[in-house]
Amino acid sequence: MKITVISGGVGGARFTRGLREHVRRALPGTDVHGADLTAIVNTGDDMWLTSLRIAPDLDSVMYTLAGENDEVRGWGRIGETERVSAELRAYGVGWPWFTLGDLDLGTHITRSHYLRSGLPLSEATRLITARWPLGVELIPATDDEVETHVVTDAGTMHFQEWWTKHRAALTARAFVQKNVDSATPAPGVLDAIASADVVLVAPSNPVVSVGTVLGIPGIREALAATSAPVVGVSPIISGAVVRGMADACLSAIGVETSAFAVAEHYGSRRNGGLLDAWLVNETDAASLPDIEALGIRAAAAPLWMRDADTSAQLAADVLALATAG
Amino acid sequence: MKITVISGGVGGARFTRGLREHVRRALPGTDVHGADLTAIVNTGDDMWLTSLRIAPDLDSVMYTLAGENDEVRGWGRIGETERVSAELRAYGVGWPWFTLGDLDLGTHITRSHYLRSGLPLSEATRLITARWPLGVELIPATDDEVETHVVTDAGTMHFQEWWTKHRAALTARAFVQKNVDSATPAPGVLDAIASADVVLVAPSNPVVSVGTVLGIPGIREALAATSAPVVGVSPIISGAVVRGMADACLSAIGVETSAFAVAEHYGSRRNGGLLDAWLVNETDAASLPDIEALGIRAAAAPLWMRDADTSAQLAADVLALATAG
Repeated sequence: MKITVISGGVGGARFTRGLREHVRRALPGTDVHGADLTAIVNTGDDMWLTSLRIAPDLDSVMYTLAGENDEVRGWGRIGETERVSAELRAYGVGWPWFTLGDLDLGTHITRSHYLRSGLPLSEATRLITARWPLGVELIPATDDEVETHVVTDAGTMHFQEWWTKHRAALTARAFVQKNVDSATPAPGVLDAIASADVVLVAPSNPVVSVGTVLGIPGIREALAATSAPVVGVSPIISGAVVRGMADACLSAIGVETSAFAVAEHYGSRRNGGLLDAWLVNETDAASLPDIEALGIRAAAAPLWMRDADTSAQLAADVLALATAG
Repeated sequence: MKITVISGGVGGARFTRGLREHVRRALPGTDVHGADLTAIVNTGDDMWLTSLRIAPDLDSVMYTLAGENDEVRGWGRIGETERVSAELRAYGVGWPWFTLGDLDLGTHITRSHYLRSGLPLSEATRLITARWPLGVELIPATDDEVETHVVTDAGTMHFQEWWTKHRAALTARAFVQKNVDSATPAPGVLDAIASADVVLVAPSNPVVSVGTVLGIPGIREALAATSAPVVGVSPIISGAVVRGMADACLSAIGVETSAFAVAEHYGSRRNGGLLDAWLVNETDAASLPDIEALGIRAAAAPLWMRDADTSAQLAADVLALATAG
């Protein structure tokens, strides 16, 4: 079974790890060593910082699948330190509010080295992820530099500045994915969608993670054309975001923070939208008829990924919904 | 009194620190906060490594003057760690035999950031050194990338590979300063030589440190034209190098490892060479007549820089020789 996930950072990382766990437990015929699980990862949060290329979502997914992520803090490497970062602050460069861990910097330097050598991001990612047996192939949505900027009353800024420095407290008027119109999907992206048995949309930020991936010309069309069902998992539970500040992003594009509203925003695939089916949390079961009325099959299940068991069960539930169609 | 030093790495760093100490003690009218002491520093050991620009000699001089150098190890930052470097090794990039300390990486990343932003190395150096009250202005010999390569029977390699990986054990057939013919002195270099009251040649490697600086078109001419005396300190004591493997470099260019032979190699300024005067170690006093016969004033003094006192005394001795002419 060939499964392709559209993923952002931390939420998508945990979802993908649960999917791998489910596949290992329940689908022993599936090769989890790269062939059958693919994650197409958002690159809109990427940036150049002090001459290094940072790719937060790719790294979150990689570290989580590698078992190297800091579960307590929720992001970055376990056992992280910030000795280099303290030096950068002493020299007065970088963004003082943006953490660059020492271990994480090893990844940034390696990535920058490959990019400066002329390799595209997808190839750099292939070389970097080869360090660990992830069991999932990670492909950046695009090799082009598509960076999300946020328009606020205090000016337009890189997404990271808005998200991390201002904690999304400045009202976002709009999100601008720089260069997205001229971007092309990275090698393997369109094929991973076209040849999939199931395409899953992770419970990631619908605006700046999934939205950025969908904004790359060709990807939405591939999702419309694939013979695979496209099934999403709601990032909203009981009217609140599972993590992060996705509600501030949804408000900016006029979408309510609810499982139903995000389904409506994504739209029904049979009506030109994204989704064949949508999995909501059990507490949001009352919205199932409204979602079905959009032309999207819907089901409710526990969405909280607390551990390996609940994460694997979530993957099982979303795959059951995918194949129930 | 305006003093300009031609310097390599560790030896030049200690010599310059001793000079600063002497000036602070004995010449209170001299402003040691940047105005009157200038070091023109070799950049031939510089290189791009995993997309970062490494400048070993500039950093050695800066760390030493800042009091941040590791006196025991003899190079790099005190309290250094190598967490990032271990990550780079795990990813399979970089040179496993080349140490990139975490604190040191802060400098490399800052420098690379400035260079990638379009600043020349001299301006990047000015911004980086502003972190500490060094009391000495550091100027790279050139803003151009002049990298020393070593021709051996096992192939041609970057100086760092020959020096650090092979510990200079491969016989050097020749040294090639790449791009040196088209390089120009960095802003401030020619003026620091022309306007100096004294120019000092530090006890640095005559071939790959001082030699590289002299190879940059315009610098040798400026040294010939300056009204200041040009006085050198021998890097050879009793027929052996004070540190490093300068003897392997001298052999490659057919120069014996002796205080006299290096003086002969540099040549008398009045005969088209570099030196007005040459300070040798007290154990090499027997060579003074031979050096004087070259047209170079010579004196003997203790050259070992063991601590602040001996280093300051060395500076006093070389300045005394400079003004005795």
